[in-house]
Amino acid sequence: MTATRTVFLHDIPLETARERFDAALRAHGVDARGDAVETVALDDALDRVTARAVIARLSSPHYHACAMDGIAVRAARTAGARETAPVVLEARDALVVDTGDPLPPGFDAVVPIERVEPREGGRVAIRAAVAPFEHVRAIGEDVVASDVVVPARRLLGPADLALCAAAGVARVDVVRRPRVALITTGDELVDVTADDPPPGAILDSNAVLLSACVKRYGGTVALAIRLPDVEELLVAAVARASASADVVLVNAGSSAGRDDYTARVFARFGDVVVHGVAIRPGHPLVLAVAREARVPLLGIPGYPVSAAICADLFLRPLLERLGRRDPPDEQTIDVEVTRKLYSPLGEDEYVRAVAARVDGRIVATPLRRGAGVITSLSRANVLLAIPRLSEGARAGARLPARALRPLSAIERTLLAVGSHDVALDVLAGRLASAQIELVSAHVGSIAGLSALRQRAAHLAGTHVLDPPTQTYNDAAVRRYGPPEPVALVLLARREQGLVLARGNPLAIDAIAGIAATGARFVNRQPDAGTRILFDVLLARAGIAPEAIAGYDRIEFSHLAVAQLIANGSADAGLAIRAAARAFDLPFVSVAWEPYELALPARTLEEPRIAALIATLHDDAFRREVESLGGYDCAHAGDVRIVAPQVPA
Amino acid sequence: MTATRTVFLHDIPLETARERFDAALRAHGVDARGDAVETVALDDALDRVTARAVIARLSSPHYHACAMDGIAVRAARTAGARETAPVVLEARDALVVDTGDPLPPGFDAVVPIERVEPREGGRVAIRAAVAPFEHVRAIGEDVVASDVVVPARRLLGPADLALCAAAGVARVDVVRRPRVALITTGDELVDVTADDPPPGAILDSNAVLLSACVKRYGGTVALAIRLPDVEELLVAAVARASASADVVLVNAGSSAGRDDYTARVFARFGDVVVHGVAIRPGHPLVLAVAREARVPLLGIPGYPVSAAICADLFLRPLLERLGRRDPPDEQTIDVEVTRKLYSPLGEDEYVRAVAARVDGRIVATPLRRGAGVITSLSRANVLLAIPRLSEGARAGARLPARALRPLSAIERTLLAVGSHDVALDVLAGRLASAQIELVSAHVGSIAGLSALRQRAAHLAGTHVLDPPTQTYNDAAVRRYGPPEPVALVLLARREQGLVLARGNPLAIDAIAGIAATGARFVNRQPDAGTRILFDVLLARAGIAPEAIAGYDRIEFSHLAVAQLIANGSADAGLAIRAAARAFDLPFVSVAWEPYELALPARTLEEPRIAALIATLHDDAFRREVESLGGYDCAHAGDVRIVAPQVPA
Repeated sequence: MTATRTVFLHDIPLETARERFDAALRAHGVDARGDAVETVALDDALDRVTARAVIARLSSPHYHACAMDGIAVRAARTAGARETAPVVLEARDALVVDTGDPLPPGFDAVVPIERVEPREGGRVAIRAAVAPFEHVRAIGEDVVASDVVVPARRLLGPADLALCAAAGVARVDVVRRPRVALITTGDELVDVTADDPPPGAILDSNAVLLSACVKRYGGTVALAIRLPDVEELLVAAVARASASADVVLVNAGSSAGRDDYTARVFARFGDVVVHGVAIRPGHPLVLAVAREARVPLLGIPGYPVSAAICADLFLRPLLERLGRRDPPDEQTIDVEVTRKLYSPLGEDEYVRAVAARVDGRIVATPLRRGAGVITSLSRANVLLAIPRLSEGARAGARLPARALRPLSAIERTLLAVGSHDVALDVLAGRLASAQIELVSAHVGSIAGLSALRQRAAHLAGTHVLDPPTQTYNDAAVRRYGPPEPVALVLLARREQGLVLARGNPLAIDAIAGIAATGARFVNRQPDAGTRILFDVLLARAGIAPEAIAGYDRIEFSHLAVAQLIANGSADAGLAIRAAARAFDLPFVSVAWEPYELALPARTLEEPRIAALIATLHDDAFRREVESLGGYDCAHAGDVRIVAPQVPA
Repeated sequence: MTATRTVFLHDIPLETARERFDAALRAHGVDARGDAVETVALDDALDRVTARAVIARLSSPHYHACAMDGIAVRAARTAGARETAPVVLEARDALVVDTGDPLPPGFDAVVPIERVEPREGGRVAIRAAVAPFEHVRAIGEDVVASDVVVPARRLLGPADLALCAAAGVARVDVVRRPRVALITTGDELVDVTADDPPPGAILDSNAVLLSACVKRYGGTVALAIRLPDVEELLVAAVARASASADVVLVNAGSSAGRDDYTARVFARFGDVVVHGVAIRPGHPLVLAVAREARVPLLGIPGYPVSAAICADLFLRPLLERLGRRDPPDEQTIDVEVTRKLYSPLGEDEYVRAVAARVDGRIVATPLRRGAGVITSLSRANVLLAIPRLSEGARAGARLPARALRPLSAIERTLLAVGSHDVALDVLAGRLASAQIELVSAHVGSIAGLSALRQRAAHLAGTHVLDPPTQTYNDAAVRRYGPPEPVALVLLARREQGLVLARGNPLAIDAIAGIAATGARFVNRQPDAGTRILFDVLLARAGIAPEAIAGYDRIEFSHLAVAQLIANGSADAGLAIRAAARAFDLPFVSVAWEPYELALPARTLEEPRIAALIATLHDDAFRREVESLGGYDCAHAGDVRIVAPQVPA
C-alpha cells in the first residue's frame, strides 16, 4: 500500500479528471447500463427509481362512490323540487347509502341525509333538486385508468407507492441497482473479523468503507474479492469482475510504487484516462473504461481518508448516474476556522474538521490531516474544501463547509478542547442521552485554555500545576485563558503516577528510578499538564531532563503512553491510574490533582452547560468514573470562579 | 372512512397537540423503549444508530509499522552520523524494510532508502542520525486500544464502520429499530394486490403509504393487521399490538362519525391526550399512550393526504425519538405562488404544489387540495405551510416552502400548464432520459396561456379554434398570452371526434345525433380548447347547448371523458382518438387540429427547450406518438412566431 509518488503519476486538476472520465463513459456508451430493469413489489420499492412511467391499471375511485351519507336518487326525478313544493320519492327511488358505498345501478346522484324528510311507507320528501353526479365521486375523479401516475426516473417515496397502489399497480419496474465488484489488494490484508492479527497484518477496513459507500450511493456489492499483490491475479479478477458487474473498484495499488500495477492492469482492458488527480488526500487515483465490457474501472488509493474522498468525488456521481438518481442535497454552512490552514497551491484539499456553535458563530477545529488518520474521517462533522488556487486560510477566516451530519447534530455539539481524560468519555456517554454531543480534542491543558480565549471551544479540560504557588489551574487560567471571569468546574480529582513495564523489571518505585535505571521514558507534549507535573517532579528530585532517556519522545494522551509501555517500546511514563488499569500495568502513585473544566462564567446558565454540571452531580456518573480507578468524584460539579488578572 | 365532523371532536392547535403528546410520552416513560439494543455485523450496521460508545479492541496500527521503504536501524547506533562523517552499519544492524512492514524486534527507527549508501558485504553507510521511532508509525498512533472510537447515538456512516473495523470491532451494538404495529380498519378494505376489486371495495393503499413512512422514519413494521369496522375486533388488535410493538398505528376511524370508535378504543387502554388537531388536511387525529404497555397509540385519519401529513407531523418525530435519530435536514426554499390561496384562520394548512424555476424565480402552482386527492401527494415537489394566523396568500406572494425532492430535481423541472394531451406524457418519458422532468398541469388551453402571461409556466399546450377566422391558436395567444413574441411549437396534429358508448347503441354518427337521441353527454371545462371546438361544431350544426343533455357536466381531461363513457355513466363526449383507443370505444372523427406548445420566443435557445424541440424531431418519439392513433407528427417540432397585438 505504498504511496510513494513517482514521475509515472501525472496529477491533473479535479475538473479535468471529471471531464476526461465523463467523456470516456460517453464514448463507451456506459450509461446504457443504467437501463437494466427489475420488477419489484411495492413493499420493496421504497427509495428505488422508476425505470419507466407507471400507468394506472384501475381508476380511482374505480366505481361511482357516494360522497355523503344520504339517499341515492335519479337527478331527473328531483327536477322542480323547491322549498315550497317538495318532491316526494317512492322508497324504490330513494335508496339509503353511506359515504364510500357504490352508487346503485340506475341512480346518478346523492341527497345528503340532513336534506331528506322521511314520510310514511319509506317514502321521502326533498325540497331541492340535485344535478346528475351531485355528491358522487365519479369513476376516475382522482386517477383515470391508463393515465401516467408516476413518471420515469422518480425516486419512489411513500406517496408515490400509495398512488401506485390506488391505481391498482402492485409491482413496479425500477432501475436495477448498479452492481459493483470490489477488489481489495495487498499481501498484508486480513478480514476485519480476524481476532488477533499478527504484526504486519492489516485489517481490510477499506473493504468495509467502500462497500458501505457503494450502498450509500445506491449501488450493491455484487462481488467482493481480496487478493495478494500478484499482478496476474489482479488481471484475472478484473476480467471476471468486468464480465459480471457494472462497475469495477480496485483498492490500493493505484499509485506508482513497486507493487502499484493497478494502472498497468487497467490498461490491458481499456483506456486509462486518468492516473493521478491533484486532490489531497487522494492523489493516486486511476480511472479507466474496459473497452469490450463497457465497464468503468476505478483504482482507489489505499490510505483510508484518500479512499473515502475519492469514493465521494468519483464513485458517488458514477453510481448516481447509473442508478438514475438525483444527488441528495448537500448542506453548506459558513464556519470560522480556529487555526491557520496551509494548503499547497495547485491542489484541491479536503480538510476534516469538528464544527460547533460557540458564542453565536460556528467554529471549525481542523483534525489531523494525514491520509492514514482514519479517526479524522469519523470524528469530523464538516468537510472544508480548500480550492486549487488558494494557499489556505488564516485563523479566524470564514470558509464554506460541507456538513457531514444533520445541522441539528452540529448545533448540539459541545466542544471540549484541552487535556485528555478518560472521565470525559464517560461524561460524553451520559450527555448523549440528553441529546448533547460532547466532542473532545486532546491538545493539552494550555492549548485548551488558548482555544477558550479564542472562543474556539465551549470548555477546556485543565490540570496545570503552578510551581511557585503549588496550586492548580488558577494561574494558568489567568495567563492563558479568556480575559473574563472563568468558571472552573471540577470533573474529578485524579491520581497521577508512573506507569511501568509489565512486572516492573527495572524495579522503579519513584521518579529517581527512571534516571537511575536508564529506563526508556515516553513523555507528553510540551504544554500538557502531565508534562508540567513531570517537570515539577524532576525539579523536586533534582534530576535534569537530559538524564531522562526519551524525555523528548512525546505522545498526546494517557492511553497512548500506556499503550507504548504495554507493547514494550517504552519502560515508563507518567499518566493517570486509569490508563495503567486499561493495560493492566504496574502503577506508582505520585500525586492527586484536580481535573477541572474551564469555561466562561457567563455560560454557566446555558442549558447544555447546566445539563453537564447536573450530570457531574449524578451518582451513577460518579460511580462509573470511580470504577475506572484513581478517581475521586466526591466534589464533582463544584464550581469556582477565577476573576481575570487586574492589569497592574 | 367518513370524515363527518361532529362536536365530539375538539381541534387544538398543532403546537398544543405536540406538547400534550410529548408530556404524555414523558409521563409514561416511553423513551426508555428506545434503549432496546441489538448487535449487528458491520455489514448490516450502515445507517444504524450506536446504542453505546464503541471501544477499540485493537490499536491502529496494532504493531510498530515502518512508514517508509528503507532500512530498519537502532537509533542509538546512528548517533553522530554527519555528512562528513558517515556511520557504517553491519548488515545485521541494517535490515531492509518496506512501508507497512513490522519494525524488526530490537530495532526502533527507519532510514529512508534514498538516504542509505550501500557498501560491500551488505553493509550500509548513513550520513544523518535518526531519532528513536523516526519514520515509524508507532502502535496506537491513530487508535489506542480501549479508546472510544465512535460515540453513543451516532448514525453510522461508512467512515465510522471503517474505523470500527480498524479498531478490531466487527460487531456493534445499535438501537433496535422501533417496531410499529399497523392496523388498518374498514369493511370495504381489500389488499392492494387484488386484481379486480368490486364496486365498493377500497384498495388499502394507506397500508402501503404508512408502512413506507415507517421505514423512511427508521422504524420497522412488526405487525400489520387489516380489520373490518367492528369495535371489539379493534380492541383485541390494539391489545395484541401494544403487547408486542413499540408504537401502535391505527388508520381511519379517528374521526367522530358512526364508525369512528378509534378514540373510544384507545381510551380503554390509556389516556387520550389529543383528539382533533387544527391542521388541514388532517383534522381527525387521535393521540394516546397505553398505560400498562407504555406504548404510544396513534389514530391517523383515513384520507390519504391527511394520513401522510399526520404521519409526517407526529409519527416521524416519534420514531426518530425512539430510534435516537437526528431529524434529517429539510431544504426550505422561497417560492412565488401562482394563484391566490385562501386558508381558514385558526388552522395550519399544508398545500401541495409543483415548483419550477421560471424566469429566474421559483414559482409554485398549488395542486388540488382535497384530502382524498392522492395524486397531489405524489406530484407535488414542494409543500407550502400556511400558518394558523394567516388567511392565505395573494397570487404572486413569496412563501417559504419545504422541498419534497432534491433541489436539483426542482431545478430541472419544466412546467407545462394548459390543455391535456396524451402525447405530452410520451414527451415527458423521452425527456426524462435527458434529465429533464416535464410536469404538466391540465387546466385547459386558455388558462395555460394566462399562466404563460403570469410567467408561471415554461410552456402551454394550446389548441384553440378562433370561430371568426377558423384558425387555431394565433388569436388566443394574442388575447390571453404574454405581451411579447410567442413561439408556437407543433407537438402534433391530432384527431378530435365523438367518443361513444361501447357498441354505439344510440347509433350516433354526427354531432346532430347527440341532441336527436338525447344521449347523456359529458363536456369539458369552459376554457378548454375541446369545449370551444364543441361549441363551434354545435353552432355549425345549428344546435342550441340546451338541447344537449349534460352540456354542463364537465371533466378536465380526454381520458376522464372516455372513462365515464366506458363505464356507462355517459353516452357521448368529444375527445381525441387516443382517449377512445385507451378504452376501446367507438370514435367518430370530426376534426384534425394542431396541438401546439406556446412559449416565450426568447426562451427558444434555452437548453431544456432546445432539448424538447430536438425530441419532437426524433423519429422514435414520432412513431411512439402516432402509434397511439389519431396523431400526425410529420411536422412535429415546427416553430412559428406570433407577434403581440399592436395596440390600436
